[in-house]
Amino acid sequence: MNIILLSGGSGKRLWPLSNDIRSKQFIKLFKDDAGNYESMVQRVYRQIASVDPSAKVTIATSKSQASAIHNQLGEKVSVCVEPCRRDTFPAILLAAAYLHDELGVSEEESVAVCPVDPYVDDSYYSCVEELGEIVQRNQANLTLMGIEPTYPSEKYGYIIPESSERISRVKEFKEKPDRETAQKYLERNALWNAGVFAFRLGYLIEKAHSLFSFTDYRDLYAKYETLTKISFDYAVVEKESSIQVVRYHGDWKDVGTWNMMAEVMADSIKGRAVMDDACENTHIVNELNIPIICMGCKDMVIAASGDGILVSDKERSGYMKPYVEQVSADAMYAEKSWGTYTVMDVQSGSMTVKLSMRAGERMTYHSHDYREEVWTVVSGTGKAVVDGMEQILRTGDVVTVAAGCRHMILAETNLDIVEVQIGENISVADKKKYSLEEE
Amino acid sequence: MNIILLSGGSGKRLWPLSNDIRSKQFIKLFKDDAGNYESMVQRVYRQIASVDPSAKVTIATSKSQASAIHNQLGEKVSVCVEPCRRDTFPAILLAAAYLHDELGVSEEESVAVCPVDPYVDDSYYSCVEELGEIVQRNQANLTLMGIEPTYPSEKYGYIIPESSERISRVKEFKEKPDRETAQKYLERNALWNAGVFAFRLGYLIEKAHSLFSFTDYRDLYAKYETLTKISFDYAVVEKESSIQVVRYHGDWKDVGTWNMMAEVMADSIKGRAVMDDACENTHIVNELNIPIICMGCKDMVIAASGDGILVSDKERSGYMKPYVEQVSADAMYAEKSWGTYTVMDVQSGSMTVKLSMRAGERMTYHSHDYREEVWTVVSGTGKAVVDGMEQILRTGDVVTVAAGCRHMILAETNLDIVEVQIGENISVADKKKYSLEEE
Repeated sequence: MNIILLSGGSGKRLWPLSNDIRSKQFIKLFKDDAGNYESMVQRVYRQIASVDPSAKVTIATSKSQASAIHNQLGEKVSVCVEPCRRDTFPAILLAAAYLHDELGVSEEESVAVCPVDPYVDDSYYSCVEELGEIVQRNQANLTLMGIEPTYPSEKYGYIIPESSERISRVKEFKEKPDRETAQKYLERNALWNAGVFAFRLGYLIEKAHSLFSFTDYRDLYAKYETLTKISFDYAVVEKESSIQVVRYHGDWKDVGTWNMMAEVMADSIKGRAVMDDACENTHIVNELNIPIICMGCKDMVIAASGDGILVSDKERSGYMKPYVEQVSADAMYAEKSWGTYTVMDVQSGSMTVKLSMRAGERMTYHSHDYREEVWTVVSGTGKAVVDGMEQILRTGDVVTVAAGCRHMILAETNLDIVEVQIGENISVADKKKYSLEEE
Repeated sequence: MNIILLSGGSGKRLWPLSNDIRSKQFIKLFKDDAGNYESMVQRVYRQIASVDPSAKVTIATSKSQASAIHNQLGEKVSVCVEPCRRDTFPAILLAAAYLHDELGVSEEESVAVCPVDPYVDDSYYSCVEELGEIVQRNQANLTLMGIEPTYPSEKYGYIIPESSERISRVKEFKEKPDRETAQKYLERNALWNAGVFAFRLGYLIEKAHSLFSFTDYRDLYAKYETLTKISFDYAVVEKESSIQVVRYHGDWKDVGTWNMMAEVMADSIKGRAVMDDACENTHIVNELNIPIICMGCKDMVIAASGDGILVSDKERSGYMKPYVEQVSADAMYAEKSWGTYTVMDVQSGSMTVKLSMRAGERMTYHSHDYREEVWTVVSGTGKAVVDGMEQILRTGDVVTVAAGCRHMILAETNLDIVEVQIGENISVADKKKYSLEEE
């Protein structure tokens, strides 16, 4: 079975833990069976692997998430990176072409596409496996999963099936309705459309050739920027008459707000925090290294990271978007391919950053035009290359890198460095990359 | 008129803005007439100066507060520093001896003693002035201010006067009563004892000689550690039969909890923060450089500093002491004689600190046995002396100071430095001081 996980969307709905460069699927608020914290993407992968250890998982994502996926899942999954943002149809197509041309998946094999962010139990992935098996029966071109609704929600699209059987042909699709209309859909055995569908790989490849002119994955990748932005629903689902749906009635939660996240978090407190006895139904997530004390908080969520602090009534947490836009500045924390990057201090003309590199990782060789950097190694050992000269890094060593000077760091052990950036135009955009082999 | 302001008490009742080394009287939450933020101690001084521009103010305080007082009031006040902590009688006596022997105040002059921390209107200091005038009439040995109670409080001691006249002889003193007893005191025209009293300077000096053997201020200072810990109330007030009290009925607030502080803060938000429209009766103080968003908070106080974050129902804020003790670590922020010291990062074997020095200020010449330091100048200019060698400091300069090496910094302009401390036993206690002149 091939599974394409769509890991898109940078968003601020779980601010300050999610931001422009850090998506909610990477926040570690769940726990695995051994009691270790895990993120949504780690949980999803673990669930798939436990249901079907032979499943081949490919994550379709954007450049900005590739490092975080690599950090959290290592080499266990294939990653198909969009060169730029197009809508869901181009993204799924690119992943399908990647499966076909890079991984050698046959056109006859089943492929299921799933979003990476619902909170579900393992039976959801058993149902995904079942979609793949049904696809092999060739009874329909597309096979969808429909979620049994628990209430007449206005937040989801609906699938109207022809019958109430567990597997049924689809009669029609409906956009998000008002509550009254939703109630009527429920009387017609309608299901929530959760964006899970399966097909033969060849089906999608053929579909794509009718819409875009391309030869293979690499050609599609090269032309990606020229593709029309079009959603999978609009390009494929709405035009397809041969669709069936499988009813899923297990747990399914859309953890798009802190209120919902609090329901499924492993612990009511993560990080340094205490609550007094007068606190009720309150959740705290603290990524800062200073403590939080909560006194008499009721039905609240408190979340703190290097980007900011949220103190919210749970019900109100879904309405914070305009306030986040009002306050948000550059993200203060990022996961890099080599570890983490935390801004500690910003003032006019300088920025102080902590780099925590994982043993064995290295940066790309690069330079900055508008800033110099002073590195102080606070723990660990590694090597730096500065203008082609290699030098050893040990605790207490200081390296000054002038503007324009090419440099990189390689961590031998876990390596922590305080980096002071000095210059009048400090920006993430001020970066030129080089190949180290040219030196 | 001479006023001794007692600035004691490091406490955590306004945590995380007050801590072991930063008292509540230095937190800037009020505003002066020009709209600039000011602290309690700045507000008190401004009020005294506006009521009596010729008042001579001496602040009796501990070593740990001397720098903060100097930072906030400059040379406008005299500061009498206790060499170690003894109770209120030794502290007041030391200040009285300081007035007499160092400032040349005559024994006939009036001296008023006031705590530095109540929130009052200017008429309070007019009443203090009046105490001094009454003292000169020699009708009693001690003249106290009594606060007209607004309710039968269990939190204060009571003064029972002989009559309900504005100025009356004192009949007796009562410890903090229960509510019922307090109600009975109120029926007897009782007043809250706010710790404000005035006397002829000679009265206290004589009193002191009957209790301790000393010649003058310097002798008393040298012997200070040997003095018995005894409160002014116990040593003087309870033994004195000739006492009168002046009724004060203006505003008087004891801002000892966040709930009370919120009532008198100049703004409902100080620092980077936003509240949504569903917030009610909520106050935010944010000293961090990251934003706070509050959604749907009712009757709450949120306070954040480098030491931690408090999220509290206002009524509950008075009960946080045990929780603060549970979480609190070393203070992360300190006012020094030369500026401010902010801890940015702590890990095993290292600590990263930001030093912000004011133009013209200098550190003492010192060394550390167990850590090396790497300084990176992020803005400003100054000079460093390292093992007797002077060197210029400019933006981008890096200085490494080995363990054992003597050093100091002098700021020519405002000077910001990121200091990385490296060593296995980093502690504020690891400091040896030297005279620079010896070099």
